[in-house]
Amino acid sequence: MTTTTTSASGANRGVRVIDHQPAGPALYTFGGVPPVAEIRPGDVLRTFTEDCFGGAVRTVDDLPSEVCAQFNPVTGPFHVVGAEPGDTLALHFAAIAPARDWGMSATFPHFGALTSTHTTPTLQPPLEERVWQYDLNLQTGTVRYAARRSDFVVELPLDAMLGTVGVAPAHGEVRQSIVPDAHGGNLDTPQLRPGTTLYLGVNVPGALFALGDGHARQGHGEVCGVAVECAMHVTVAVDLIKQVATPWPRIETDTQLISIGAARPLEDAYRISQQDLVGWVVELTGLELLDAYQLVSQAGQAAPGNVCDPLYTMHAAIDTAVLRGATAYGGAHRRLRALVRPMR
Amino acid sequence: MTTTTTSASGANRGVRVIDHQPAGPALYTFGGVPPVAEIRPGDVLRTFTEDCFGGAVRTVDDLPSEVCAQFNPVTGPFHVVGAEPGDTLALHFAAIAPARDWGMSATFPHFGALTSTHTTPTLQPPLEERVWQYDLNLQTGTVRYAARRSDFVVELPLDAMLGTVGVAPAHGEVRQSIVPDAHGGNLDTPQLRPGTTLYLGVNVPGALFALGDGHARQGHGEVCGVAVECAMHVTVAVDLIKQVATPWPRIETDTQLISIGAARPLEDAYRISQQDLVGWVVELTGLELLDAYQLVSQAGQAAPGNVCDPLYTMHAAIDTAVLRGATAYGGAHRRLRALVRPMR
Amino acid sequence: MTTTTTSASGANRGVRVIDHQPAGPALYTFGGVPPVAEIRPGDVLRTFTEDCFGGAVRTVDDLPSEVCAQFNPVTGPFHVVGAEPGDTLALHFAAIAPARDWGMSATFPHFGALTSTHTTPTLQPPLEERVWQYDLNLQTGTVRYAARRSDFVVELPLDAMLGTVGVAPAHGEVRQSIVPDAHGGNLDTPQLRPGTTLYLGVNVPGALFALGDGHARQGHGEVCGVAVECAMHVTVAVDLIKQVATPWPRIETDTQLISIGAARPLEDAYRISQQDLVGWVVELTGLELLDAYQLVSQAGQAAPGNVCDPLYTMHAAIDTAVLRGATAYGGAHRRLRALVRPMR
Amino acid sequence: MTTTTTSASGANRGVRVIDHQPAGPALYTFGGVPPVAEIRPGDVLRTFTEDCFGGAVRTVDDLPSEVCAQFNPVTGPFHVVGAEPGDTLALHFAAIAPARDWGMSATFPHFGALTSTHTTPTLQPPLEERVWQYDLNLQTGTVRYAARRSDFVVELPLDAMLGTVGVAPAHGEVRQSIVPDAHGGNLDTPQLRPGTTLYLGVNVPGALFALGDGHARQGHGEVCGVAVECAMHVTVAVDLIKQVATPWPRIETDTQLISIGAARPLEDAYRISQQDLVGWVVELTGLELLDAYQLVSQAGQAAPGNVCDPLYTMHAAIDTAVLRGATAYGGAHRRLRALVRPMR
Repeated sequence: MTTTTTSASGANRGVRVIDHQPAGPALYTFGGVPPVAEIRPGDVLRTFTEDCFGGAVRTVDDLPSEVCAQFNPVTGPFHVVGAEPGDTLALHFAAIAPARDWGMSATFPHFGALTSTHTTPTLQPPLEERVWQYDLNLQTGTVRYAARRSDFVVELPLDAMLGTVGVAPAHGEVRQSIVPDAHGGNLDTPQLRPGTTLYLGVNVPGALFALGDGHARQGHGEVCGVAVECAMHVTVAVDLIKQVATPWPRIETDTQLISIGAARPLEDAYRISQQDLVGWVVELTGLELLDAYQLVSQAGQAAPGNVCDPLYTMHAAIDTAVLRGATAYGGAHRRLRALVRPMR
Repeated sequence: MTTTTTSASGANRGVRVIDHQPAGPALYTFGGVPPVAEIRPGDVLRTFTEDCFGGAVRTVDDLPSEVCAQFNPVTGPFHVVGAEPGDTLALHFAAIAPARDWGMSATFPHFGALTSTHTTPTLQPPLEERVWQYDLNLQTGTVRYAARRSDFVVELPLDAMLGTVGVAPAHGEVRQSIVPDAHGGNLDTPQLRPGTTLYLGVNVPGALFALGDGHARQGHGEVCGVAVECAMHVTVAVDLIKQVATPWPRIETDTQLISIGAARPLEDAYRISQQDLVGWVVELTGLELLDAYQLVSQAGQAAPGNVCDPLYTMHAAIDTAVLRGATAYGGAHRRLRALVRPMR
Repeated sequence: MTTTTTSASGANRGVRVIDHQPAGPALYTFGGVPPVAEIRPGDVLRTFTEDCFGGAVRTVDDLPSEVCAQFNPVTGPFHVVGAEPGDTLALHFAAIAPARDWGMSATFPHFGALTSTHTTPTLQPPLEERVWQYDLNLQTGTVRYAARRSDFVVELPLDAMLGTVGVAPAHGEVRQSIVPDAHGGNLDTPQLRPGTTLYLGVNVPGALFALGDGHARQGHGEVCGVAVECAMHVTVAVDLIKQVATPWPRIETDTQLISIGAARPLEDAYRISQQDLVGWVVELTGLELLDAYQLVSQAGQAAPGNVCDPLYTMHAAIDTAVLRGATAYGGAHRRLRALVRPMR
Repeated sequence: MTTTTTSASGANRGVRVIDHQPAGPALYTFGGVPPVAEIRPGDVLRTFTEDCFGGAVRTVDDLPSEVCAQFNPVTGPFHVVGAEPGDTLALHFAAIAPARDWGMSATFPHFGALTSTHTTPTLQPPLEERVWQYDLNLQTGTVRYAARRSDFVVELPLDAMLGTVGVAPAHGEVRQSIVPDAHGGNLDTPQLRPGTTLYLGVNVPGALFALGDGHARQGHGEVCGVAVECAMHVTVAVDLIKQVATPWPRIETDTQLISIGAARPLEDAYRISQQDLVGWVVELTGLELLDAYQLVSQAGQAAPGNVCDPLYTMHAAIDTAVLRGATAYGGAHRRLRALVRPMR
């Protein structure tokens, strides 16, 4: 592992840039592990994340169950100076860029939404384990799907995202990196794109965030359980909102506010995300509770992130325009976006 | 009730147009009732649908629990000449236009996703029953939200749709119009917009379809249980695809194929819609099953329709472009769209 | 069909006995069908119910998917003179006796709790369809299980019950007989034994109750989807409790009060049954709501009926002794038991 | 903390007895903490467990939300010498005896099955927080319920059990003690009575088991979220079954084999427990898979443990008599029972 600290020049002169290249044993949990580096609010972190297979699946003949001992490594954890329980960590993703010109996907035994699983068991044999390789073209911004049992080939839009970003959980818990919950983790939502800001409640001193599981793209719900998995170069601006709690993960884009719920059954992930968004709207607009409920009922958007992980995720979104200029978290998203714009 | 049959002139000369104005007692079920009119494949039906309150909620002081004895009237049923079990009914919605310049919404006791309900009971008292009135502006294409407990007002896009379209169920069942299931019914999905074609499997001779529950717009999942409810003028072109079965409701737009699942818990609605779409892709492209699963996993879209009705709904969608020119149902959508284009 | 009316003599002199032998086409729905016979409150009905296979599965080589066109026939419906919506029908099961010395069970494709199903679909092939034959010994009160792939044989206790008893549903609905819901129907709970009284809310004039689906025994949840299916001779005393509503099916035994919920997911069946029992305890004891909640929390019993039908069922039970002598429905259970005791 | 080691005399001469009195800060997790004592296979542990309130709720005026900072302390963890991942830990509960003559229960805001909760949120206010005190009479074996809003009093049978027994989780996870899962934990099943043996798969060297959350009794599903909470004196004989894995918690009684599933939705807890039991029956009897499925379908019992914790639990049980003399885990239950019988 090497961590290099430099100071940006030019338009964002004065911004401290931390370059961190992961080394040593991979990390598979949120919580329970000392930090690999220290970051100050206002710093920009540049790092690398391996794909969910730890880079071990490189051809269609590499079956994950044979070549992988563990899944979903994350890079980190990073200690944020001054972060205390009750604060909110803001992570603005300036860049999430594929580190290779290929991505891999697979069916995996007893994992996915259209198979019986470990926790929805049946007596049926598993589906075949099969691997697909995608060619990524950063120039055209496309991802090439190629069937395994015919010559069907089609180009899909590249839509890079991070599947897994989280902090150390509350209550002294340590969770596997494949688990999404209130601490973030394996949210697997395509909403976590470049240009967005993720807000996570801080549970332990230093927050101890980690990130990984890049996807060149994924469908809604990640139905087979695996996206177009891809190592990523990530640039993230880090900030801290002191003494503001965030109960569930939230995302801000240039045009939307998004709440994320993680639960089973899926309607509970829906309920959590919608209730969090209703409460957020109350806070930002001063609307009375049922008035906010009504507004979200007509203006809200929703989609599943994953319907395959230990907890399912759904997001609830509303256009900030609908909220007539309300500003979340003191304008953190706009400030961070401005900070890193020259660096992208 | 009056039903008038005319023959269109001009560009769609020769198309039989049936004008049906509902009269008599309202209909609250799918199945179990004789048809109000007969329609031939190729005909265009023009009709009117009342709102889910039967038009009885006209001011914010009209509480639904006080002014409505029943909910969700539908117009029909219509007998389609020649429809037999095992066929597919195609309904192309040329127009879904608000019949009034206002719409109503409400919270209703023990109904909605953020309250305990009849089937998710708790010991807590219900939320307050409250009504909101929306002004519709067809010129600007907007719907005006006005808070009840403050002066917050905001314009939202008009996005008219029908919440409830279905046929008589299979197995001799009769279902309330508020229930969505394999026969269609109260799907409450914003995907059912003007310009789309809905495909429903036929279960009884004549299909006996009915429609209603217009929404000037709704959020994803209809979280409070009630959309911007609005009476509608509807123009629908009717066709029949003989000897082709359709297990779950499907929608075709100019750019997408959409499967709809209805079930509880919500993940089952997701599973149904995704599995139906995977099978549809297999049929249209010749892709092997797991290859289609993989393609849908990366290219598929999904969102909840309702998370409040007796069964929840989700849709799974894929761009037809991804399927490299595959044509569903022998091109029924394009044919129907062309048929009615001059009439809109 | 033949219906004979006689008057009992001896100890229950004066009780009208209606002997009804089903004939003609089998019935597969609750609702939508005219009655086959009329019964007065206080009458005793003696009838026959076919097994869920309509008697067509008679050897282990009779695969249900090949020999059955429909499943779960019920006997009825019976019109109860004077029954009106808002009343409660009381059915006391004096006898549920196997009509044959064998019963059949099976695995059925995509049906059961440990397989993917129509509404929890996966891409996996179905489990093998296989039939098991059980020898019933009424003398020893046993049911003989015999493995199909080895010589393992074991005797289980005979514990006869009816899987399906219901009335016509509310709101003009007609439901398949395999569906359990507030109207009763395919409850599939082993609690519906001889000696119990079932209470069902009346939704239509005459109640129109029907019954069938006898089981020589079943495990909790009916995990493979099929019990030891068996034709039955049934003796049931019928009574009416006027102007007392019953929202969900309830059972009274000599020692317990039982509420039944039907819903998906399974926790909602649990919630419904527990909430109904809490409310019933409030009504019978005068306990304040949370005090009753607390009492049921410590003294209540619960088990699944089925985890395979279109809606799952669970029951909530409490010993009447715990309620210090409270009497449900004006003592209907004790009165009906006394009425038929001489007839068993 | 004091740990005293003595050697039993008399009938169980030679058995090492470890007396452990907890001291120091309470433990609220499984995993992540060094052991407090070391136990060898064959040892008997005598210890004390506080109630789920840490003993802080002593009168009906002590509201848990005011007097408790954390919930559900456990005693341990204990290191079992020689335990390795892939082994099974056997814990035979010779005694679970109330340590006080009173127990406490409560409604707690947004916790329980008949209220909205943290993960099934609604916009409704919480139920009232209220405390009930139970008098325990060890002589009569009864627990006295007393209403708070009336003078209703009733005696219920004492049926002491431990709600929480588990080992350190797999994959380096640390879980709160209120969570049940494959590692055991907060199973909250009344099946964990004196005289039973609990089998848990070992995930880390030494197993690191802990126990607590005694209940003087609880209803099925623990519907209000809180049982009759009671500090306990516990005597447990510890054994190790080397190189035998146990995927989900299992219990053996003198007459039954029991598998426990933990999941949401509740049907998944049912599926897990039934599938585990089917597999266990295959292993013990040599029955082919579907033959075992069929046998469990007719002979199996099931009930909910909790329907309120982060994961719900259900158990699946079968009488060992039905398995014609099959012996689980090499007869560990009978051996341990014999070992401690003289000590009870």
